[in-house]
Amino acid sequence: MIKTPYLLFLGDAPDALAAKVAQGIKDWRPENAVGQFRLPDCGADLGIADMTLAQAQEAGAKTLVIGVANRGGVISQAWKEVLIEALNMGYDIASGLHNLLHDEADLVAAADANGRQLHDVRIPSVDYPIANGVKRSGKRCLAVGTDCSVGKMYTALAMDKEMRARGMKSTFRPTGQTGILITGGGVPLDAVIADFMAGAVEWLTPDNDADHWDLIEGQGSLFHVSYSGVTMALVHGGQPDALILSHEPTRKHMRGLPDYQQPSLQALRDTALTLARVANPACEVIGVSVNTQHLSDQEALDYCARVEAEMGLPTVDPFRHGAGRLVDALSSV
Amino acid sequence: MIKTPYLLFLGDAPDALAAKVAQGIKDWRPENAVGQFRLPDCGADLGIADMTLAQAQEAGAKTLVIGVANRGGVISQAWKEVLIEALNMGYDIASGLHNLLHDEADLVAAADANGRQLHDVRIPSVDYPIANGVKRSGKRCLAVGTDCSVGKMYTALAMDKEMRARGMKSTFRPTGQTGILITGGGVPLDAVIADFMAGAVEWLTPDNDADHWDLIEGQGSLFHVSYSGVTMALVHGGQPDALILSHEPTRKHMRGLPDYQQPSLQALRDTALTLARVANPACEVIGVSVNTQHLSDQEALDYCARVEAEMGLPTVDPFRHGAGRLVDALSSV
Repeated sequence: MIKTPYLLFLGDAPDALAAKVAQGIKDWRPENAVGQFRLPDCGADLGIADMTLAQAQEAGAKTLVIGVANRGGVISQAWKEVLIEALNMGYDIASGLHNLLHDEADLVAAADANGRQLHDVRIPSVDYPIANGVKRSGKRCLAVGTDCSVGKMYTALAMDKEMRARGMKSTFRPTGQTGILITGGGVPLDAVIADFMAGAVEWLTPDNDADHWDLIEGQGSLFHVSYSGVTMALVHGGQPDALILSHEPTRKHMRGLPDYQQPSLQALRDTALTLARVANPACEVIGVSVNTQHLSDQEALDYCARVEAEMGLPTVDPFRHGAGRLVDALSSV
Repeated sequence: MIKTPYLLFLGDAPDALAAKVAQGIKDWRPENAVGQFRLPDCGADLGIADMTLAQAQEAGAKTLVIGVANRGGVISQAWKEVLIEALNMGYDIASGLHNLLHDEADLVAAADANGRQLHDVRIPSVDYPIANGVKRSGKRCLAVGTDCSVGKMYTALAMDKEMRARGMKSTFRPTGQTGILITGGGVPLDAVIADFMAGAVEWLTPDNDADHWDLIEGQGSLFHVSYSGVTMALVHGGQPDALILSHEPTRKHMRGLPDYQQPSLQALRDTALTLARVANPACEVIGVSVNTQHLSDQEALDYCARVEAEMGLPTVDPFRHGAGRLVDALSSV
């Protein structure tokens, strides 16, 4: 686990999009975000306090989280100066960059000299078991998408937030780097060895109270040929009781695959439910989550109403309309 | 690629089952098996010439293949003496053992000193790409199982052998350690990082002549919760034109999962075909391969006839009845 709370390092992020990991932490776990650290030419601003390393440490920050994508794929010298100073002051550092902290000799040396941790959250740090398929106590919900990057993580986080607000027992279970940085722990599923994927998901979602829900972060799509194996491991390792269908209605083709069309929601429902029931015969599809960011307010409402009528399932954009109806629907499982 | 032909090292195998990797090489690629090397207390015999390291080298052997499972999971001192002598004589060594050759300092030192290769076929040696889903030329056939270990590799090897005998263009494409040792190359799919599984299968089955068939070695099962993600990557990365349903009719439950029942062949057909058509809309299920090893001759014939009537598909045990009817059925695709 990564020690919280964090100081969020935005570095020289050219714009808000480059700092979306930091934005996710601030949006979903504001209690983890003591402040932001920006270099002089930073074009992103989370709207929280700018702090020096010393100020944030004073305010309780334990870990400097790299909340920005780096330019050119390398950790620059300007970043290094801050990172090494942070290690010398007693911070751990966490990063989801492809360029690993552990591949930088000066960072490793500074961490070792100060007894600090470098967390490269893209790299598994646990020897996961092979899945045993044994039924676990507690409930689990998984969003499955018609495509990659259609709002599955957002759906799980929004439901988790709503459930906490209602006093329900819930835990968001991250399976990707952004989710892991948001909460401080999880499984970087796309970096796990094939034989251990489903076991990693079982490990992530252990036995729990009968009325506790794991909101498992989805990955990929059963219909995306590059990543469907990862999704399959979530469907079987996660033993979901409830599936949510996630969709982005304006895609012209599958993400990164110009020759592939998105499946219909009906096809997704039928295939995902058939496979999910192998691990959990009681599984049900309980709702549809639509990413309407490219639609107007009225178009979004109309689209959701049409899908709701077609599918006979509560259909919302959790960002625009809230996740309340999806949480309501969990009670049917 | 592992250099062929081989001298097959049986060591102190207690019985024939312990030497099944060597048996597979001898059965399927006899031209790769120059001879066998047995220690004094070996209980296995492939029925080919016993040779010393020098005799086999004289006969052309390039690689000493460890064709036996080791006792207690460690490479014993008795083995080491033979392996090091082989390296000193100019042999490469190939192994599918969990105990890696590369983890043995004395073997690594002897290989380095002699400029020889140690092949640990459980470990990927290639940086596979992420799958791009682009349609490839040539044809591909994949066996998908109701369970693990139901005869998918055997089916592919038997079809490949029959096709070669008929003068058809075919290549067996191994995805597991035994298959890799049999042919000298392939992808150890269960050891590949999740994000690259489907890409590894694409890499393994590249563009080919329009009338060439890849016979892809299947793994796991879409209905086996421990390994279904690996199977999914084969279905999507392999872009099969033809699927064969593989089944073992006497299993009481899914292998290693006492709480899980095998799916029906109809359920396997429907789910596998739906998913396969995402990557290749022309895909068809062309036959059923039954592993009848626990049935009598008459029971096997009766069972296959019954399945054939139910499924409307050619149904054989390729070991007992030959793979000819499955190969015939490829012409319908």
